[in-house]
Amino acid sequence: MLIPAIVDVAQKNADWQAFVFSALLTGMIGMLLSLAVGGSLREGLDTRQTFILTTLSWASLPAFGALPFLWLGIGYADAVFEAVSGFTTTGSTVLTGLDGLPPGLLVWRSMLQWMGGVGIIVMAIVLLPFLRIGGMQLFQSESSDRSEKIVSRSVELIRLIGLAYLFLTVLCIAAYLATGMELFDAFNHALTTIATGGFSTHDQSFGYFKNPASGWVAVLFMIVGAMPFVLLIQALRGRPLQLWRDPQVRALLGFLALVSLTLTVYLGINMRFPFEEALLRSTFNVVSIVTGTGYALGDFTQWGAPVVGIAFLLMFVGGCTGSTTGGIKIFRFLVFFGTVRAHLRRMVRPHRIMSEEYAGTRLTPELSFSVLAFLVVYMGSVGIITVALSFFDLDLVTAISAAATSVGNVGPGLGPVIGPAGHFAPLPDGAKWLLSFAMLVGRLELFTVLVLLDPDFWSK
Amino acid sequence: MLIPAIVDVAQKNADWQAFVFSALLTGMIGMLLSLAVGGSLREGLDTRQTFILTTLSWASLPAFGALPFLWLGIGYADAVFEAVSGFTTTGSTVLTGLDGLPPGLLVWRSMLQWMGGVGIIVMAIVLLPFLRIGGMQLFQSESSDRSEKIVSRSVELIRLIGLAYLFLTVLCIAAYLATGMELFDAFNHALTTIATGGFSTHDQSFGYFKNPASGWVAVLFMIVGAMPFVLLIQALRGRPLQLWRDPQVRALLGFLALVSLTLTVYLGINMRFPFEEALLRSTFNVVSIVTGTGYALGDFTQWGAPVVGIAFLLMFVGGCTGSTTGGIKIFRFLVFFGTVRAHLRRMVRPHRIMSEEYAGTRLTPELSFSVLAFLVVYMGSVGIITVALSFFDLDLVTAISAAATSVGNVGPGLGPVIGPAGHFAPLPDGAKWLLSFAMLVGRLELFTVLVLLDPDFWSK
Repeated sequence: MLIPAIVDVAQKNADWQAFVFSALLTGMIGMLLSLAVGGSLREGLDTRQTFILTTLSWASLPAFGALPFLWLGIGYADAVFEAVSGFTTTGSTVLTGLDGLPPGLLVWRSMLQWMGGVGIIVMAIVLLPFLRIGGMQLFQSESSDRSEKIVSRSVELIRLIGLAYLFLTVLCIAAYLATGMELFDAFNHALTTIATGGFSTHDQSFGYFKNPASGWVAVLFMIVGAMPFVLLIQALRGRPLQLWRDPQVRALLGFLALVSLTLTVYLGINMRFPFEEALLRSTFNVVSIVTGTGYALGDFTQWGAPVVGIAFLLMFVGGCTGSTTGGIKIFRFLVFFGTVRAHLRRMVRPHRIMSEEYAGTRLTPELSFSVLAFLVVYMGSVGIITVALSFFDLDLVTAISAAATSVGNVGPGLGPVIGPAGHFAPLPDGAKWLLSFAMLVGRLELFTVLVLLDPDFWSK
Repeated sequence: MLIPAIVDVAQKNADWQAFVFSALLTGMIGMLLSLAVGGSLREGLDTRQTFILTTLSWASLPAFGALPFLWLGIGYADAVFEAVSGFTTTGSTVLTGLDGLPPGLLVWRSMLQWMGGVGIIVMAIVLLPFLRIGGMQLFQSESSDRSEKIVSRSVELIRLIGLAYLFLTVLCIAAYLATGMELFDAFNHALTTIATGGFSTHDQSFGYFKNPASGWVAVLFMIVGAMPFVLLIQALRGRPLQLWRDPQVRALLGFLALVSLTLTVYLGINMRFPFEEALLRSTFNVVSIVTGTGYALGDFTQWGAPVVGIAFLLMFVGGCTGSTTGGIKIFRFLVFFGTVRAHLRRMVRPHRIMSEEYAGTRLTPELSFSVLAFLVVYMGSVGIITVALSFFDLDLVTAISAAATSVGNVGPGLGPVIGPAGHFAPLPDGAKWLLSFAMLVGRLELFTVLVLLDPDFWSK
């Protein structure tokens, strides 16, 4: 919070007070909490406590992140929505007139996403495999083992993640500067690109930048943000082939290429865009939605019904696990296709024995079940949130796309209100609270929160 | 086909020729096919042949059912759509001005649904459990055993199903007559009520009948059509308690009551309907959608966003297995909730051993997997069909509701075009072919068709 304060002081903007006071309040409460329970934390956590602590952390951090917004006169529902959308790297916004907002506030929004981005990477690599969330046990490694002597390795891994994240961010700033962006824009957009967050400093989002090269830099770093971070670290250490050997990475890149090219052809024929423009607009928006970033380059809802239909489905896809992306994620589709195919074969020839693999690991029935249950709960959650939103008088397109975009941590929805050319400000407060909840639950990969709802969890 | 011919002759309508010629053509082709392959069929079918024959039967019957429509000058796409919508008991229609159509044609539409209804009951009780479609192995019984000495019992069961179906239809005609319906309307609507089909003889659907008692009779018999038919037979034989002991039946009735009452309160407060009207309109439309009938009583899309949201979700629900309904079906939700709850508990306490049951049967991992895979494939199919429809320039609400209503064999969609006050005639031909395919695939519970798409199925 002191960084946006410094930015505001440097720009002679009185808003610095909001950040300093928020920092003081947050620091004080943090210190008190640390004094009160820090000792017992050092004894280690069991599974139940890990579930509770993970959920509570992600629920309480945005509460503090919302303090500067509140101080600056933004209402409770809006402030919390914006902070949650930031921390979860969703990128839906309730703020308008971004171009005229004080610089400290814009920096704070970008920083929320940047911190949330590295937070989710650490959670996905260190915590979720151990909690066995939706098939994440597939990625159990030494670093998710919690025995005493491994903890130091986890700490080392977290340090490496932080360094790589910082390095890639700096690289992204440099790349944006090279395409002619101003420093302030390059800084803010680099923070929200690498985090696949999507907050922009302009109402027009990436439509503001006229140099196509800026768009391509964004495409590149959104894809980087969607890669498994452990393999990114290995690539940075000189082993880039590890990335290409990962089935998630191949499937994601192949999928992005296929959909982008299809849409390029469609835009070329139906919208008569010149080839280069069609390629950039199509690739940019496809990558932005699939990686859950949520930048917009033009209002793609005006490009015909097929684009809207595809955009809706893309909101569910997501990137690789252990990245900053949301959504269902590629490995779950791979596990799903593999196990369902084997299932179909068993239906026809019940006595044949088959075993399915994922990247050399044999899939246990337990793991396939985890993944399928995740898929059903994911789509069921979108359905239930859609109906709940319809009670706030949102039409079906707004409600269902808001549900999908929030659970998937994507950003913009569809339709005239919350589409890529709109924002979430006109929604009623109740819908904003509900969507804040949905973004958090999506970020925690549903099951982390769902286990807490079973009364059995709380019994001794 | 001779019945509508007789109706047309009696009413001095020249259309009788269409039905007589269609009957001759169908009879001739049927006889030739029977002579050609009837002998080899008597030797019995293996699993693969059963998959192929089931799919082929349901694909070819509507082709013959469409002949009278073609003869009467309706285009190919429309004729096939109407026949498929009939046989699959979906109830979406491309015909308008129903009130003025020749009586034979109206009778033919109703008969298509009536025959399709009893066809799906037999398939769901005798075939699908044996093919282990989406957890249907749960309902394997002697009647799905195919060993020699059991075949005669299957034949006996099919005879009983036919008798009970006929009895309930006659009962429904009598009940409609008692509420003041004319004989022609009572006959047609009884055929399409018990089949949970939804074709009406009036453009206004049930809005045409002013006596609320007719609506309540429809509610009663739509619910009857959604019951497991084996238990209905037992109830008719004097053991009605068997019905109430079935978890699907309880869950379905409880769910219908809960949603109907919630909606009644909503309609009372927000639309200021008098209580009795609110209760009938709410219950009628909820039961009509959940059972996949598709009658409309008023244009519920005009009653506010929450009604639209709820209607959309209800399209996925479905009735009991072994009934005439489509959709996901209640038992799959019960299995899903049970197994996911156990899964959540295992996540928290990995070493506890738990076993889940459904109606006294222990659920194997294989069965839970079948059900979950069905749910994912079901929702995935709706998603893919939505995108495919959007390429015919359908907006998102029309596309997604058309996909959901066709895969679920419900009937009307949402939005101004295909909503309960509209019809499917304005859709482009390509969309009609696609939806005809979707209705068939939905009726065959997806996996029956899906196994045929695996190249491995066709290898020796």
